Amino acid sequence: MSFAERETVLQVEEGNQLAPKFDDKGLIPCVTLHAESREVLMFAFMNAEALEATLASGFAHYWSRSRQKLWKKGESSGMTQKVERALIDDDQDCVVLEVSLATPDAGGDEASCHVGYRSCFYRKVELGEKSEVRNLEFIEAEKAFDPNAVYGDAPNPTQL
Amino acid sequence: MSFAERETVLQVEEGNQLAPKFDDKGLIPCVTLHAESREVLMFAFMNAEALEATLASGFAHYWSRSRQKLWKKGESSGMTQKVERALIDDDQDCVVLEVSLATPDAGGDEASCHVGYRSCFYRKVELGEKSEVRNLEFIEAEKAFDPNAVYGDAPNPTQL
Repeated sequence: MSFAERETVLQVEEGNQLAPKFDDKGLIPCVTLHAESREVLMFAFMNAEALEATLASGFAHYWSRSRQKLWKKGESSGMTQKVERALIDDDQDCVVLEVSLATPDAGGDEASCHVGYRSCFYRKVELGEKSEVRNLEFIEAEKAFDPNAVYGDAPNPTQL
Repeated sequence: MSFAERETVLQVEEGNQLAPKFDDKGLIPCVTLHAESREVLMFAFMNAEALEATLASGFAHYWSRSRQKLWKKGESSGMTQKVERALIDDDQDCVVLEVSLATPDAGGDEASCHVGYRSCFYRKVELGEKSEVRNLEFIEAEKAFDPNAVYGDAPNPTQL
């Protein structure tokens, strides 16, 4: 792996070498944005292998917690994510990817979310003091692609 | 709490009620962006109390893992985060906050990072095949504030 050992706080925060911190499950969180529109597209985890594959290949790879496997984004759907820029935070325990998107192989607009929306963050949360359940408002008017056409009968990764 | 029970995948993904999922430590990850510049400012975790306080008050609250306490961002530094918009993802296990920032009480420019930079993501990671440690390149030319003036001798939250 192309990672440095974590030796001092000064090195981690102010140094110029990648020294990522993985959590007690061996994972590091990753925030993925659209490089041009600056929408947050998705949030996922990477293990060391996924981070190395992402940085080496220039295409986003994640660790699928639901499938417990390395996952090149778009490998089944065609909706790959080309890394335009990768950032790391102060204590090097979170990654940001700025990506460009591809359209699904089965047709539709460029997108990232398995539900069919462009971004996973397609709903806005009601603010203010509330004594009842908060409402969500959809900020995407329609889906970018048909998830049944793209994913067929693959298991839905959403878990209750 | 103003949260619904999680009953079905359809309800969670396509519904219009907030039904957040907290992990096995009772936490939900949160990505915080600058509402105007669209920079990713920081990544942190919230417990249910922090999420409720954020949505009710309109100011970002997090769960400090290093201090094991509810943390209103800016309570000691003055660098509060006013929530302009809050988003939730498809399976409702990640929050995005779009915020505006305040300047530190001790002086300096508006910022978010305890190291003194505007964003925690002040370094870009080298891409491509590498057999040695990857270099980081600073994308912020100078610090927005003096962390010693703002935080004094408070313990550094960065952990090796």
